[in-house]
Amino acid sequence: MKRGLLLIISGPAGSGKGTVIKELMENSDEFVYSVSATTRKPRPSDVEGVSYYFVSREEFEDKIARGEMLEYAEYVDNFYGTPKAPVVAALEAGKNVILEIETKGALAVMEKMPEAVSVMLLPPSGKVLRRRLERRGTETADVIEKRMQTAINEVEMLKYYDYLVINDEDAQSKAADDIRAIIKAEKLSAKRNAEFIDNYFV
Amino acid sequence: MKRGLLLIISGPAGSGKGTVIKELMENSDEFVYSVSATTRKPRPSDVEGVSYYFVSREEFEDKIARGEMLEYAEYVDNFYGTPKAPVVAALEAGKNVILEIETKGALAVMEKMPEAVSVMLLPPSGKVLRRRLERRGTETADVIEKRMQTAINEVEMLKYYDYLVINDEDAQSKAADDIRAIIKAEKLSAKRNAEFIDNYFV
Repeated sequence: MKRGLLLIISGPAGSGKGTVIKELMENSDEFVYSVSATTRKPRPSDVEGVSYYFVSREEFEDKIARGEMLEYAEYVDNFYGTPKAPVVAALEAGKNVILEIETKGALAVMEKMPEAVSVMLLPPSGKVLRRRLERRGTETADVIEKRMQTAINEVEMLKYYDYLVINDEDAQSKAADDIRAIIKAEKLSAKRNAEFIDNYFV
Repeated sequence: MKRGLLLIISGPAGSGKGTVIKELMENSDEFVYSVSATTRKPRPSDVEGVSYYFVSREEFEDKIARGEMLEYAEYVDNFYGTPKAPVVAALEAGKNVILEIETKGALAVMEKMPEAVSVMLLPPSGKVLRRRLERRGTETADVIEKRMQTAINEVEMLKYYDYLVINDEDAQSKAADDIRAIIKAEKLSAKRNAEFIDNYFV
């Protein structure tokens, strides 16, 4: 069984991550979406192991202490993070694991799993990004400004990523195609195939 | 104009480089095949600038001295090598330049043009490679053994390459598809798109 690829996908609000990931997952059973763990209480619509893995604060802290979290953060008194075990299990089963995560968490994962392939997804320009945020119509001007500032900080982090994929709404499936090409190419990388060569002439 | 990609393709005799490159070139006008320079005399069937650039020994040595050769080697009293100028001109015109070259020359090019993307093309196994060499029927057992030994040395060099592509004759177009995915992915690499981001929010 050839090991799957760990695919980190980051992108600011308005980058269309959700749509692109949905398209990747709908068109192939080679993908598994990494489910986060959290200490927040489940809501009626939540499904354990789908929305989140729901764990107690004590369990979460134990996992951190044992190095079982690839990354984590605390928001509004609750922990959120990526447990390592299900990611590794899926990779070993040959699945590509999609980790949708903001830049800070992404950097933590890159450090713990250097084999990860990281993609930053962006709209074609900052102008389009702003337009997408404004179009939602649900946010105040203040919130939009804050999101734009966050986006500016996130885009700065591109230098730590492997790939940049542009998500143009006028060519929706192109971004998914680009990511499929990235996965194909990464699986052909010489460093991922060093073992193949060891037995080439036997 | 977005700069093209310099694509180094190496592979032992019997790897099917010619067929794969032909398929790449026939299906796209984005490719240019890098033509070598040589000091050997043109034969009646040779076409200047297509078979080779034919130059005098003095010219060739001048080019070496001026750093105008990406790589070169001497066989049977003649120089063969890759002039840098046409490669750079094609890249600047947005073309992907294919450089079909043995491993030693490839390493010299990687050093001089670190932006190059290198692919080693191999048959599915050493056994298949041997069968392909034997099937040609034109070579003596001695020549086949020598070619196998050369292949063993070349495969050793995979660690210096970016990608490994397997050329299975039962799935001929797959190798070309793989190379197309590699080119697509490389053009999406964050390091090749750092400039795009500089002007993202202006």
